[in-house]
Amino acid sequence: MAIHQFKQLRRSLGFDEVAIVPGDITANPDQTNIDFKIEGFTFAIPIMASAMDAVTDVNFASLLGKLGGLAVLNLEGVQTRYNNPKEVLTEIAQASNAEVTPLLQKIYSQPIKENLIGKRIEAIKKSGDVCAVSVAPANTKRFAPITAEAGADIFVVQSTVTTTRHISKSYRGLIFSELRESIPMPIVVGNCVSYGACLEIMRNGISGVLVGVGPGAACTTRQVLGIGVPQVTATMDCAAARDEYLRQSGRYVPIITDGGISNGGDLCKAFAAGADAVMLGSIFAQAEEAPGLGYHWGMSHPHPALPRGTRIKVGTAGTLEQILFGPTSVTDGSQNLVGALRTAMGTCGALTIQDMHQVEMVIAPAITTEGKLWQRLQS
Amino acid sequence: MAIHQFKQLRRSLGFDEVAIVPGDITANPDQTNIDFKIEGFTFAIPIMASAMDAVTDVNFASLLGKLGGLAVLNLEGVQTRYNNPKEVLTEIAQASNAEVTPLLQKIYSQPIKENLIGKRIEAIKKSGDVCAVSVAPANTKRFAPITAEAGADIFVVQSTVTTTRHISKSYRGLIFSELRESIPMPIVVGNCVSYGACLEIMRNGISGVLVGVGPGAACTTRQVLGIGVPQVTATMDCAAARDEYLRQSGRYVPIITDGGISNGGDLCKAFAAGADAVMLGSIFAQAEEAPGLGYHWGMSHPHPALPRGTRIKVGTAGTLEQILFGPTSVTDGSQNLVGALRTAMGTCGALTIQDMHQVEMVIAPAITTEGKLWQRLQS
Amino acid sequence: MAIHQFKQLRRSLGFDEVAIVPGDITANPDQTNIDFKIEGFTFAIPIMASAMDAVTDVNFASLLGKLGGLAVLNLEGVQTRYNNPKEVLTEIAQASNAEVTPLLQKIYSQPIKENLIGKRIEAIKKSGDVCAVSVAPANTKRFAPITAEAGADIFVVQSTVTTTRHISKSYRGLIFSELRESIPMPIVVGNCVSYGACLEIMRNGISGVLVGVGPGAACTTRQVLGIGVPQVTATMDCAAARDEYLRQSGRYVPIITDGGISNGGDLCKAFAAGADAVMLGSIFAQAEEAPGLGYHWGMSHPHPALPRGTRIKVGTAGTLEQILFGPTSVTDGSQNLVGALRTAMGTCGALTIQDMHQVEMVIAPAITTEGKLWQRLQS
Amino acid sequence: MAIHQFKQLRRSLGFDEVAIVPGDITANPDQTNIDFKIEGFTFAIPIMASAMDAVTDVNFASLLGKLGGLAVLNLEGVQTRYNNPKEVLTEIAQASNAEVTPLLQKIYSQPIKENLIGKRIEAIKKSGDVCAVSVAPANTKRFAPITAEAGADIFVVQSTVTTTRHISKSYRGLIFSELRESIPMPIVVGNCVSYGACLEIMRNGISGVLVGVGPGAACTTRQVLGIGVPQVTATMDCAAARDEYLRQSGRYVPIITDGGISNGGDLCKAFAAGADAVMLGSIFAQAEEAPGLGYHWGMSHPHPALPRGTRIKVGTAGTLEQILFGPTSVTDGSQNLVGALRTAMGTCGALTIQDMHQVEMVIAPAITTEGKLWQRLQS
Repeated sequence: MAIHQFKQLRRSLGFDEVAIVPGDITANPDQTNIDFKIEGFTFAIPIMASAMDAVTDVNFASLLGKLGGLAVLNLEGVQTRYNNPKEVLTEIAQASNAEVTPLLQKIYSQPIKENLIGKRIEAIKKSGDVCAVSVAPANTKRFAPITAEAGADIFVVQSTVTTTRHISKSYRGLIFSELRESIPMPIVVGNCVSYGACLEIMRNGISGVLVGVGPGAACTTRQVLGIGVPQVTATMDCAAARDEYLRQSGRYVPIITDGGISNGGDLCKAFAAGADAVMLGSIFAQAEEAPGLGYHWGMSHPHPALPRGTRIKVGTAGTLEQILFGPTSVTDGSQNLVGALRTAMGTCGALTIQDMHQVEMVIAPAITTEGKLWQRLQS
Repeated sequence: MAIHQFKQLRRSLGFDEVAIVPGDITANPDQTNIDFKIEGFTFAIPIMASAMDAVTDVNFASLLGKLGGLAVLNLEGVQTRYNNPKEVLTEIAQASNAEVTPLLQKIYSQPIKENLIGKRIEAIKKSGDVCAVSVAPANTKRFAPITAEAGADIFVVQSTVTTTRHISKSYRGLIFSELRESIPMPIVVGNCVSYGACLEIMRNGISGVLVGVGPGAACTTRQVLGIGVPQVTATMDCAAARDEYLRQSGRYVPIITDGGISNGGDLCKAFAAGADAVMLGSIFAQAEEAPGLGYHWGMSHPHPALPRGTRIKVGTAGTLEQILFGPTSVTDGSQNLVGALRTAMGTCGALTIQDMHQVEMVIAPAITTEGKLWQRLQS
Repeated sequence: MAIHQFKQLRRSLGFDEVAIVPGDITANPDQTNIDFKIEGFTFAIPIMASAMDAVTDVNFASLLGKLGGLAVLNLEGVQTRYNNPKEVLTEIAQASNAEVTPLLQKIYSQPIKENLIGKRIEAIKKSGDVCAVSVAPANTKRFAPITAEAGADIFVVQSTVTTTRHISKSYRGLIFSELRESIPMPIVVGNCVSYGACLEIMRNGISGVLVGVGPGAACTTRQVLGIGVPQVTATMDCAAARDEYLRQSGRYVPIITDGGISNGGDLCKAFAAGADAVMLGSIFAQAEEAPGLGYHWGMSHPHPALPRGTRIKVGTAGTLEQILFGPTSVTDGSQNLVGALRTAMGTCGALTIQDMHQVEMVIAPAITTEGKLWQRLQS
Repeated sequence: MAIHQFKQLRRSLGFDEVAIVPGDITANPDQTNIDFKIEGFTFAIPIMASAMDAVTDVNFASLLGKLGGLAVLNLEGVQTRYNNPKEVLTEIAQASNAEVTPLLQKIYSQPIKENLIGKRIEAIKKSGDVCAVSVAPANTKRFAPITAEAGADIFVVQSTVTTTRHISKSYRGLIFSELRESIPMPIVVGNCVSYGACLEIMRNGISGVLVGVGPGAACTTRQVLGIGVPQVTATMDCAAARDEYLRQSGRYVPIITDGGISNGGDLCKAFAAGADAVMLGSIFAQAEEAPGLGYHWGMSHPHPALPRGTRIKVGTAGTLEQILFGPTSVTDGSQNLVGALRTAMGTCGALTIQDMHQVEMVIAPAITTEGKLWQRLQS
């Protein structure tokens, strides 16, 4: 047989497949510093809320700001399509499983009202919080000036996969260097998952990168398109790009792991894999103050021809403050996320998030499927 | 202890175990070209329908032809054994689980009527479509002249495993080079899964190769015989053979991944693994226009002494057009397969199927079994 | 940190984790030769029946002999403890799950009657078949002369793990070379799973080796003792020992894969891994003629202080002839095992069992657990 | 693309993923010596009971002492907070699932009564048994003198993760070398999981090390904090540290695998991985004499702000003597643990625990999840 070269595939890893190894030194959790910085802005906790309609509205953004984090308002969702988004959100929550995808397709086919963009941004700024907003690449040029004028602080350009180069015959691609010069605020771009794409984005002068394609609970991208990289590998690869870019340029661009985090354990592992911050969707959709009323759905879900996502019932777990800081009586890792992060850091002797990037992880598949499932079936 | 050499086993991969990595460049889906060629014929979409009785009849073949694909009519199934195949298909659909295997064994023991072969081919040709038909190796010499005379365009020689060399005392093996000279149309041969077997088939002047042994939903070959190679590995190995053969001969022979594709994600991964086209069974059996009436069964199923396969209830999901092009309100990847392929290609910056062969995949086991199963049990 | 050496663990493989790759040449199943030889004896099919009370009694041994295989009668089970074993077997079949382990412990605490040993052997010989019997190492010296006198043909020394050297203060260990000289028949020894142990047994002049510790369906050795090697690895390692011993001595000692085979696919994989024959328990316990009346239990199950095993309900699948040769209407690989073996060999172009030892296997985990389980829960 | 270095993750292993390979020599179980030594003390069986409230009270400690093992009394649980702990334990057993975590948080917020420490120790000593007690690092200086005065024999310093160096601004860290000089008894420290941390502890003059973070049945540390190392890897790494420390210092410090052992098979594997003893929680909580009344919960469970653990119903399986020595009629490896260990050692030809450290293990995932689960759903 002739010698032939087969394609080699790399093994990637998700949260369920790894575990953090405790350190040879430990520290008290109250010694840890978990600050997170995007250019001029410093946040007390390294946790962002997704630009998803079930998670972030004006009220939620203010609340998370007060608690030290940063929520991103989606400028292409119900908040800017409807004067009264609560009505629409209630309709979504009350739809049956069979009705909900067509309903979402209909709701998201309404046009965006430009006046609502300014109105929402001003409402967040009025409460004194940092205001971050998100727009898809195709709408960036159109909405960027409006958001700048309304006083937004951080501009997020986000789609399932965003790169610095996009081939299109219908419109001239977004040029990040042009965008950066046209608006006077830090730009965060996502999502990406690979070393090369991440490095390229950083080289375009971007201030933060969202990491994660296909891992979220409300996302079926992988089933529909076959595309997705598990978050531990995606975060490790983009962290390597960040470190390489720092070495080359002297500039530190934070990476934010976005999607797939379902409990405190996953959150801690994201930092151990190299994240500077995490962005949470499903977990925050469970907050009493979340606009989704106990439901959550992905932003690709309403696609008119190829919906990718599921509306999932997440229920209501407690207040946002409880979810972040406890105290709690639940033992499944869904509450007191900041306490969990500080405790894990202490257990690893990591005093800063950058120390946490250095801790060891091992490949350790989650406790036998069969056992866990059996316990659940029994309970 | 003496030094001893143990047999080394290679790790193979199936669709559920891999994921596609998005590209560093992206493209608009409408920029992509997904043409598929078999010798003189060009098809607008790289999707074929299986030569299985629950999938392809005259009507389905015409319909898929109009939509840009190619269906293969099985010349050894109910279409050529019965004047009125609908009656028989209804009987199969109405049988209980206990009755169905003996019933299939009985139905498929009826002789093939040679006059029906010509009749079915002419019916497909009358509608103006490309006509592809399939025959098992043992019947090839007998049926080839009839099909040529009736005007078929593409001749498929297919069995569980077909090689260029077959040892038999009961009949002289099929010589592909002889067959090729005796009939004036492109010959597609399958199925195979290994580099060596695929290369050998191409060297015999064949125009296309079907890839896949043991992966289909209605197939229990692996349980009964222990034989089977997961489709990602099989496709990668046969793609390597295709590329090697092209290098040696200058001739490009397409490979078609046949079996095991259960959603858009799998389909996209087949192309990323190296497929030039895919052949679908179960998914098409769910079309409103499919002859199986909501059921599907393998062609090895009716074997009189050693049946391999299960009749499975696939249900009816929508029209063939919806399955291929949407629009859809389902989010599980079972509809708008062409939209999914173009979107995935765009996300990877692949403008052609051959670009898609170059994209990176990672080993990434499907989201935890336990979680998915739990969701299903809950729903 | 100091450099330190961690224990390295080898990855082992079971039937569910591998698949056979079809060959580049194929053959008609009727061309295949599946003879199996133990010293002077040649059997038409390479299939043995376990020395377990739910599988082999006098009648079953005769029947399998007529069909070309070889059953082994356990001389330490109910057949030699009770004049009327049928009564006892009925009692076991009728016991509830809660009662059955104490009942088995009681039943197997009855003494062995030496006169019944001769009686059972003579009954098998009277039917004209080859008679194989099995004894545990500790009873070997006591029972060997009786079996020789009664006319047995093949003597099997079997326990969970049997080695050529056993440390004991209570009795002088069995010396295989002495045993071999004291009785005039081929000796088969088991079970073992490693290269070293297997080679050592062969060097003691033994005529066949049983391979397998802890894999059987009615066995909980691995849960109770942590001990066990998956059968594909065990068979590959012992096959390597056989080949090495052949190279050194010129003598070919067959190895028999015993336990863990649950369908035709597993059986075919055992041969691809290097087996010369297989020994079946659960599958034969499902025969209409099996003495277990639809139940099966391991021979370590009745241990008075540390039972290891489960009585499992296997049901009744068909006659022994159907299980071996079909025809069948079931599609799960539980019937027509000989047809399956010949078909798999043909698909691989293997004309003999020794050709089958050379075929390629790949690591290919069974189709996703979640999917299979879901199908089962649905059905 | 630039060359870049990604973080490399080591594959770790748990009990379910490995199996012991039988030896080339075997021995009678009654030949085996399973003594376990901590400095001056020798125990007939290498089995300890966890310092958990559902497992060890005064009565259980005496009982296990009589049977040859060693129980550790937790000095920070209900035994030292309540004059009548039985009342409190009954309340826990009777609470509903919804009430239990807040109830535990309340119960464990009661102060520790120093007079009860002495009282419990004296009660154990009065029965003539070795008395081991456990304290968290922060309380060590306060309670050490009291325990010494009351006559305790072995002092255990235990928390989720304990290292020789702890960074804290609120209190001066525990210095093990100081502690060792201040109290006149052997000190056992835990838990740790890594080579480096274990070696460091041994270098501080400690007499025994508890191994295991995050593996126990009542523990959700991994879900809450992401932290944990599967026990086979943790034990192998710490055993390597023990052997290295012995080489450097000439002193042999035993390691005790604590947590995650759910049956005899796991127990045997712990020794094969290098353990000198094991510490059992859930299995002993099932003893008739256990104080937990059929329930079990972790000691991190009552944490006021971040509880980690679940109260699980373990039921009652038999007397402690049956669990340790049988005889038994259950076949799932939950009883006759000492018999199982001796049998496994015999099967491997290991005459001592240190011989058992040398036996081979292979990576061998537990029998297919799907199959096992299916059996359970059926039963």
